[in-house]
Amino acid sequence: MIMRKLLYSVLFIVLPLFMQVSRAQNPDSIVIRKMYTEALTNPVAYKNLEYLCTKIGGRICGTAKAEEAVQYVKKLLEGMDLDTVYLQPVMVKHWERGNIETAKVVSAKKGRRDLHVCALGTSVGTGDRGVKAEVVEVRNFGELKILGRTGIEGKIVFFNRAADESRINTFESYGGAVDQRAGGAMQAARYGALAVIVRSATTAHDNFPHTGVLHYADTVKAIPAMCVSTNDADLLSLWLKDDPSLKLSMNMNCRNLPEVPSSNVIGEIRGSEHPEEIIVSGGHLDSWDLGEGAHDDGAGVVQTIDILRIYKALGIKPKHTIRVVAFMDEEIAQRGAAAYADAAKKKGEKHIGAIEADRGGAAPWGFSIDAPGPQTTKIKSWKLFFTPYNLWFFEKGGSGVDIHNLKSQGTPLIGLVTDPQRYFDYHHSANDTYDKVNVRELELGAAAMAGLVYLIDNYGL
Amino acid sequence: MIMRKLLYSVLFIVLPLFMQVSRAQNPDSIVIRKMYTEALTNPVAYKNLEYLCTKIGGRICGTAKAEEAVQYVKKLLEGMDLDTVYLQPVMVKHWERGNIETAKVVSAKKGRRDLHVCALGTSVGTGDRGVKAEVVEVRNFGELKILGRTGIEGKIVFFNRAADESRINTFESYGGAVDQRAGGAMQAARYGALAVIVRSATTAHDNFPHTGVLHYADTVKAIPAMCVSTNDADLLSLWLKDDPSLKLSMNMNCRNLPEVPSSNVIGEIRGSEHPEEIIVSGGHLDSWDLGEGAHDDGAGVVQTIDILRIYKALGIKPKHTIRVVAFMDEEIAQRGAAAYADAAKKKGEKHIGAIEADRGGAAPWGFSIDAPGPQTTKIKSWKLFFTPYNLWFFEKGGSGVDIHNLKSQGTPLIGLVTDPQRYFDYHHSANDTYDKVNVRELELGAAAMAGLVYLIDNYGL
Repeated sequence: MIMRKLLYSVLFIVLPLFMQVSRAQNPDSIVIRKMYTEALTNPVAYKNLEYLCTKIGGRICGTAKAEEAVQYVKKLLEGMDLDTVYLQPVMVKHWERGNIETAKVVSAKKGRRDLHVCALGTSVGTGDRGVKAEVVEVRNFGELKILGRTGIEGKIVFFNRAADESRINTFESYGGAVDQRAGGAMQAARYGALAVIVRSATTAHDNFPHTGVLHYADTVKAIPAMCVSTNDADLLSLWLKDDPSLKLSMNMNCRNLPEVPSSNVIGEIRGSEHPEEIIVSGGHLDSWDLGEGAHDDGAGVVQTIDILRIYKALGIKPKHTIRVVAFMDEEIAQRGAAAYADAAKKKGEKHIGAIEADRGGAAPWGFSIDAPGPQTTKIKSWKLFFTPYNLWFFEKGGSGVDIHNLKSQGTPLIGLVTDPQRYFDYHHSANDTYDKVNVRELELGAAAMAGLVYLIDNYGL
Repeated sequence: MIMRKLLYSVLFIVLPLFMQVSRAQNPDSIVIRKMYTEALTNPVAYKNLEYLCTKIGGRICGTAKAEEAVQYVKKLLEGMDLDTVYLQPVMVKHWERGNIETAKVVSAKKGRRDLHVCALGTSVGTGDRGVKAEVVEVRNFGELKILGRTGIEGKIVFFNRAADESRINTFESYGGAVDQRAGGAMQAARYGALAVIVRSATTAHDNFPHTGVLHYADTVKAIPAMCVSTNDADLLSLWLKDDPSLKLSMNMNCRNLPEVPSSNVIGEIRGSEHPEEIIVSGGHLDSWDLGEGAHDDGAGVVQTIDILRIYKALGIKPKHTIRVVAFMDEEIAQRGAAAYADAAKKKGEKHIGAIEADRGGAAPWGFSIDAPGPQTTKIKSWKLFFTPYNLWFFEKGGSGVDIHNLKSQGTPLIGLVTDPQRYFDYHHSANDTYDKVNVRELELGAAAMAGLVYLIDNYGL
């Protein structure tokens, strides 16, 4: 009996305990634990975000603020004792918001009301005299077709399809509404609309207009395009029901200027064994200007920089080159992404993995993997290393537009996935400020990325 | 070849598709999907939270604010067409914060400084003349023993052990520091301390004192106890290094008054098949008074009420009785929890499941299960139903103090687990306000609980 008891003890108590201890004492687990401790107890990424957001602020590519951000990140990297820090030139569009962006509803029945609006990115202005016209409300491009030129010509088109709040992932809510912002002006212009006003693509009910880029077509007239807060979109829709002939008066002096030179900012620790093989991580340095570009994407920039800081702080020498890139111009034309991939191709650089952080600085869930089966399987097998840190999402899916161009060069792509519920409360609005990012959530994301880079460096893909 | 292709198609395309569709069209999955849509598109819980927080505000048990909250929740439930709404009487302690709570450091070397402080819950006051004395800084109760009466008598003890930021779960950081708040006064009094000042038990670095209850012992003198913000705790510690003989002057006019009657608020939908078997969900209605009791635990109260609202809105008639309880006095002596369990025992009520929401209104992770093996296994098997909603945590663990007393009656206990990173930024401080709760995160928690109640009702435990 005693022997059986002993056997039982070994099988069900000692052995599992031993296995648990040995997993915890696995050298990789120990390193990853140190990375998390470093990130959580030395919140340098958060301090960097504070500077980027509160000292520099919103930074549309092509503007002086964006260049200030480039110089700041360059200096930051230069102070980190890295092996290489350089700027990668890129020509970017230059759009200026101007200082006038107003919209007023004028209704004989309902009265007058100023709306919370802003110009959509790259929109043309209204001219000094503004645009004043009747409003036709639609939910989608199909309704434009039904209304036709007779229903639209000479009017302002009001796109008012709401982001679907019942979606669990707010990126899907956003994705189901953003066509109105991106393509509304182009589509409405085909039918002779004078301008468009678009409901903000957000799940939030607030007074913030949420801006973002639009796309014109060469073949149709570029007409002015605004976005309006969701609260005011609801109001405008209600007023239109009572008074379909109300008028909207729009004024904006935004304008497109000639392209200007700008830069991606790059820093790296050279690999001790395979310096020619690169693991790249990035976020985008440009942002919209209404807020401070905190969640989108100051967070991603400071998190990726923190990967290098954590390596340095722990004295880890990577086998492969670890490179971080603060990409320029994600928001308008993704020129930084293109320049980076082009340069990589020309130089014959070999990227063995690419990670992007551009979904906000909320608590990390895990990683979205855009890679062939075997590589995806390998990354999924590392989930165990991150279980102690509550990462649970290791699934096939998109990565991010700044690294996407590396896919055709055979690079496995990975996106840091963060909790999406609050993201579109901030996205592209004046509400995207530093104080909306939680220090621990941000730092946990940085540690997760550092851990993943460490595993790729050790085991390849 | 064509047959083989067909077979392949059936095996690898049609069959998985069929399985997926049939899982999505599983009647339970459809109901749970409707519950989520109801919660996300009709954010009534969030509106109720707004009222509770901004119209009533902080509500320590025994105070007029707490009674106002009782009446509000009763009226709310009475307006929901439930089968039963009633108050369950409970006697509670009555502690009054008073209007004076100040602490000033006076140092010949460093100068004078007012600290951000507040009285700890149930602390005695300092008397009109206050307490002014030298300060001895300690990290734990062991250091008190080493210092002994000679090192402590006539002084103010400053407990300054920080919450461990390197912990991944902030509840562990808090748990590792909160003994100083709960037991510091009692322990220091044994050695003749005049008063204590305790570093706030939070991972945040801020200027908010984070209050909370303390416990005196009958055998030692009740001495005044304050907490101090983490920033000011750091400052006080620095000053003490330069000037160990600096003095701290404390003034508080808080006081304990005779116990008063209060209530748990209870509402239920009676079961159609087993009305005598109860599934209970609860949060606690009382809160600390510095903020609005939003995350702690207004969120839990409005989420549990939303379970009933969702049932009503979808016209679902439960087989078992679904009951929600807004518990009184979680923060001080858990009298509501005791009264509820006592009454259940006396009435011979059979609780087939109990759920508590008291970890803040952040994004839900899943459920913590405190039940015997087979019941735990059953609940874990339901994880699949919640995968579309990104719940991933279904583990053995504690539930909550308001339902804990039901354990000895054989009830399986379940706690709603939410993302813990931001919780202690708010906890027990002036920072715990309505605007810190995100509507979608709150509503996702309500839907998760409604879904779990639905599964317990359908399949038992």
